[in-house]
Amino acid sequence: MIIVLARDATEADIGAVVQEAARTGAAPAVARSGDATVVRVATDGRGGVSGRLRALPKVRGVVEGDLPYVLASRDFKAEDTQVAVGDVVFGARRVVLMAGPCAVESRDQLRLVARQVKEAGARVLRGGAFKPRTSPYAFQGLGEDGLKLLAETAADFGLKVVTEVMAPEQVELVGRYADMLQIGSRSVQNFPLLRAVGRTRKPVLLKRGMATEIDEFLGAAEYVLAEGNDQVVLCERGIRTFEPRTRFTFDVSAIPLLKRLTHLPVVADPSHATGAAFLVPAASKAAIAAGADGLLIESHPDPREALSDGRQAMTPDELALLAPALRRLAEAVDRTL
Amino acid sequence: MIIVLARDATEADIGAVVQEAARTGAAPAVARSGDATVVRVATDGRGGVSGRLRALPKVRGVVEGDLPYVLASRDFKAEDTQVAVGDVVFGARRVVLMAGPCAVESRDQLRLVARQVKEAGARVLRGGAFKPRTSPYAFQGLGEDGLKLLAETAADFGLKVVTEVMAPEQVELVGRYADMLQIGSRSVQNFPLLRAVGRTRKPVLLKRGMATEIDEFLGAAEYVLAEGNDQVVLCERGIRTFEPRTRFTFDVSAIPLLKRLTHLPVVADPSHATGAAFLVPAASKAAIAAGADGLLIESHPDPREALSDGRQAMTPDELALLAPALRRLAEAVDRTL
Amino acid sequence: MIIVLARDATEADIGAVVQEAARTGAAPAVARSGDATVVRVATDGRGGVSGRLRALPKVRGVVEGDLPYVLASRDFKAEDTQVAVGDVVFGARRVVLMAGPCAVESRDQLRLVARQVKEAGARVLRGGAFKPRTSPYAFQGLGEDGLKLLAETAADFGLKVVTEVMAPEQVELVGRYADMLQIGSRSVQNFPLLRAVGRTRKPVLLKRGMATEIDEFLGAAEYVLAEGNDQVVLCERGIRTFEPRTRFTFDVSAIPLLKRLTHLPVVADPSHATGAAFLVPAASKAAIAAGADGLLIESHPDPREALSDGRQAMTPDELALLAPALRRLAEAVDRTL
Amino acid sequence: MIIVLARDATEADIGAVVQEAARTGAAPAVARSGDATVVRVATDGRGGVSGRLRALPKVRGVVEGDLPYVLASRDFKAEDTQVAVGDVVFGARRVVLMAGPCAVESRDQLRLVARQVKEAGARVLRGGAFKPRTSPYAFQGLGEDGLKLLAETAADFGLKVVTEVMAPEQVELVGRYADMLQIGSRSVQNFPLLRAVGRTRKPVLLKRGMATEIDEFLGAAEYVLAEGNDQVVLCERGIRTFEPRTRFTFDVSAIPLLKRLTHLPVVADPSHATGAAFLVPAASKAAIAAGADGLLIESHPDPREALSDGRQAMTPDELALLAPALRRLAEAVDRTL
Repeated sequence: MIIVLARDATEADIGAVVQEAARTGAAPAVARSGDATVVRVATDGRGGVSGRLRALPKVRGVVEGDLPYVLASRDFKAEDTQVAVGDVVFGARRVVLMAGPCAVESRDQLRLVARQVKEAGARVLRGGAFKPRTSPYAFQGLGEDGLKLLAETAADFGLKVVTEVMAPEQVELVGRYADMLQIGSRSVQNFPLLRAVGRTRKPVLLKRGMATEIDEFLGAAEYVLAEGNDQVVLCERGIRTFEPRTRFTFDVSAIPLLKRLTHLPVVADPSHATGAAFLVPAASKAAIAAGADGLLIESHPDPREALSDGRQAMTPDELALLAPALRRLAEAVDRTL
Repeated sequence: MIIVLARDATEADIGAVVQEAARTGAAPAVARSGDATVVRVATDGRGGVSGRLRALPKVRGVVEGDLPYVLASRDFKAEDTQVAVGDVVFGARRVVLMAGPCAVESRDQLRLVARQVKEAGARVLRGGAFKPRTSPYAFQGLGEDGLKLLAETAADFGLKVVTEVMAPEQVELVGRYADMLQIGSRSVQNFPLLRAVGRTRKPVLLKRGMATEIDEFLGAAEYVLAEGNDQVVLCERGIRTFEPRTRFTFDVSAIPLLKRLTHLPVVADPSHATGAAFLVPAASKAAIAAGADGLLIESHPDPREALSDGRQAMTPDELALLAPALRRLAEAVDRTL
Repeated sequence: MIIVLARDATEADIGAVVQEAARTGAAPAVARSGDATVVRVATDGRGGVSGRLRALPKVRGVVEGDLPYVLASRDFKAEDTQVAVGDVVFGARRVVLMAGPCAVESRDQLRLVARQVKEAGARVLRGGAFKPRTSPYAFQGLGEDGLKLLAETAADFGLKVVTEVMAPEQVELVGRYADMLQIGSRSVQNFPLLRAVGRTRKPVLLKRGMATEIDEFLGAAEYVLAEGNDQVVLCERGIRTFEPRTRFTFDVSAIPLLKRLTHLPVVADPSHATGAAFLVPAASKAAIAAGADGLLIESHPDPREALSDGRQAMTPDELALLAPALRRLAEAVDRTL
Repeated sequence: MIIVLARDATEADIGAVVQEAARTGAAPAVARSGDATVVRVATDGRGGVSGRLRALPKVRGVVEGDLPYVLASRDFKAEDTQVAVGDVVFGARRVVLMAGPCAVESRDQLRLVARQVKEAGARVLRGGAFKPRTSPYAFQGLGEDGLKLLAETAADFGLKVVTEVMAPEQVELVGRYADMLQIGSRSVQNFPLLRAVGRTRKPVLLKRGMATEIDEFLGAAEYVLAEGNDQVVLCERGIRTFEPRTRFTFDVSAIPLLKRLTHLPVVADPSHATGAAFLVPAASKAAIAAGADGLLIESHPDPREALSDGRQAMTPDELALLAPALRRLAEAVDRTL
């Protein structure tokens, strides 16, 4: 059993928890994780000890068993958490559309995309300034110049900015320009980075890794929450499977599953999940039907056409056509877009 | 390149194809597969040869490259195929709901379920009389007695019957009682069985295997089509991945992907795909949003409650609640249910 | 708990088992599976009931929990089973080399390969007469003509024949020519076929499916054993994963894992597992080092060279070079080859 | 095509490359990645341009196609790279045994293990001071105290130290105590961290991620090499698959595959790959038979016995028994241990 206490728990508060936990007969151990003080005790919670512990002062949460998360669980908090990025709220009735290019390339490109995605109904502009690339010789992003372009452009069009941060030492810099910090799928278990964004009070968009189990995903979110930042939005973005026709396999069931296990908002990235623009409309509709609180869609004014099905980004025209269809879907599940 | 000719192609028809194919400079080979005569030639179709071949008499289809299917491809037939099971039509505007128990257990159980699923809007009764089970000591189904119960019960409630056939020698027997023959996921590459159902004129419900690539799945359908039976409905039912929280991973993107590659109807089985009744509503909605032509849902009057989340079958009450929600979703994508 | 009794168990024998099982307080149920009579009872085996049941007459095996196999388990039989194909014995000190072409193509091809693999040390000739192919238009094998060629050629070179059987109705025909019946990976859960080969007394080579869990694999073997045929050799042949550089992923750890769970011999097919001839030597050595009782290697006098790394079959020269290296490996783990 | 030049390439050197590359008709682009200057040009290398480019001054390597690595490829460097950690050399005839506990717990524990693994033939002591853990509440390692214990203990027993570094800002600290820097599987695509260890001249042990394709793995190594550090040892440690009986699936074929694609040494971690101590002996033997240059084995004086098969660490007695068996295997493939 794990008992998480608030940072401002006094020695007396901790002592009270230890004493109650010790009544199980097992020996409690006290440790710290970020903002939280943690008491662990090897017991199965029989006899109502869990309820008594929850009732003690400064106890933030209690979980039985060996789940890697407490604060992220529905058991800790039953009602949905809403994450506000300015006036854009994740986890409310309105489904949030985020769109933009994979990488920020130039002012012109970005302004063009921003106008187009705004018109299609997007409220958050996505775009990479620091890009994790398989090859060190591939374009690594414009860095701070890209961040500046994102911030300026978004301001001009009344959009919010979400962009990726790749290392703890970039958090302060990216946080200066971005409204929401994205943790990419390759960083889902970069624990120093998770702690670093947890120490900010910025909203975080946490993407599932390509081979991350649901419980590991929530463990990653817990790293952020344990530091005192509960403004975390989870993003399903496809998992790695044997199927070669899609880049990843979009695990749409992860959306309702996550929503049962956690109170945090859940969004989907159908562009990376499928890797093919022609599948994005159906995957986006499926995500909304399954309960997603938002969508993260890649859009580019001129997607490279190497293989017509191979290209991942939608054109703005395709996005403009998709938006009303998504709106109808949202309404059919008692939401708006 | 593969050219498929009709069974009644004469020697002259075949000769004409061979002559045209030989003009590419490669040597054509003639073979038979079921009802079809096939001419294969090692060429890449440059210079319009493919179009000229298609125009010849008795040519049913032509594919370039090394795809394992011709007749199943959109390239062979652009418009959607409709598969009629009596007055129930797959591939039309109306989404088809199929529901019932995993296995037929008794007359009383089956009649109870049949009444309930009928009320919920189902038009096809599913239920296993021959069950593929991991253990030889597990319940293997009631066999012909189960088939009789299915046929009688369905008739009484105005439902159609879909049920699994496991071996070529069962095809005649199962076909006597069933309106639609199901090929289970473990049999997706049981080629003698596929040929056997291809030789009937019964509609076939072909389930994807748990590790079947999309192209292999269409290759399996081609075995049925090559025998002259084009009444095939494809069913996505979850693929095997690393995620332990769900029994399989529901590959919702397979639905729009299949519909692009083939003219055959595509349905989904959210019960097996997720293995958890509490995920079936969201997965069902996602399937319809993604374009599914039907749903196959497991329903049981008294699902065993071993693990509350672990149970796969919905209760009739849950199904009754789900149906109106599915109807709204269907309407949001211009369909009915 | 499952108790398996022999076919010749009398009503008295069964009654004694039921009576003992009933002492647990749960209600035993009697059923038949192939040659075996089975008593199932919902109990966890506390209080030594399992031992008492084992001691009763005609009881072949008992397993607790929900494993799908009894007769295949080490718990049922501690010592290694040896499977004899004439004078070739699987599960003894000598590692058995099986080699030959994917498909029998012609008398000349087969005689050439047979001579070469014999010289390299192979004792069993493999080759397909009935071929499961993804496409109905691909070469499906020579059928009975291929079987005749296999039998004749093997006899001339003092080899045994292993070849695939794809359907229950082929078992009698294939069994007339083959010394060992192969169940291919696509048929691993073709339960009617497993029962059919179980009703023969021919040795069976059972290949793991590409997404078959170890417990399911042993459940498949149990279908054969439950029919009274315990001459089953298990074959690891690669599982489906995300890695695109190899056709499958060779699960070498499955070898020691299977040998712990079952008494049946275990061999490996490095050719299908890797899909690349240049990886076969290392994978073969790994298999022997990990405890494999045999190897199934694809060899062809003139492998198609489409992609030099893509070709799967070894040339006879490569096989001749590999054999002495395998012999040294075998000796290093106290075996011979 | 990618051409990598040395850091000290002059403008004239770069100009010469650009000029030669431009003769293909495509427009070359110049960029920097770490220590390397890179020229990229969209051409397929026809007409011998690749050879002419390689012959130019300061050109470190050239690759055609879209592989994410140049310096790591066999095409760049045909002969095996040897990585020296003091007098311990990876990639030479002698297979290197690395062993130790998962985490450093105390001085006594570590000294005990060190003595035992030294006696068993290990030359490198492994042990975590910074531990990546799924849960923020799990033991995160002793930090610098753990590093000090590792360094002292290893010095006393004549062992080298390999230990994990999790963040760029830890590299200097860990490098002060460790002989070899381990990049864990969760960090395989932590590109800022890869660059940071690339800027040291410390040997690096790079573990494959649980869903990392071989080409991505080599791309990760390339990040280190591009910074000027070519002392990289690759480690296969199991990939994520559907099989629940093992923690991961040991991809033994990755060893020969990597050795064909790259000149870097390759080792295996059978403890994490299988997750079960009882499978480590067979997996270790398989690794050596397949050509591994070393083994990384978890050993603990008192492995928790929760589930006898579930425990991952070997006891020292088990390790002592395994060592001579590994020595015999090594000799059978013309190596020593």
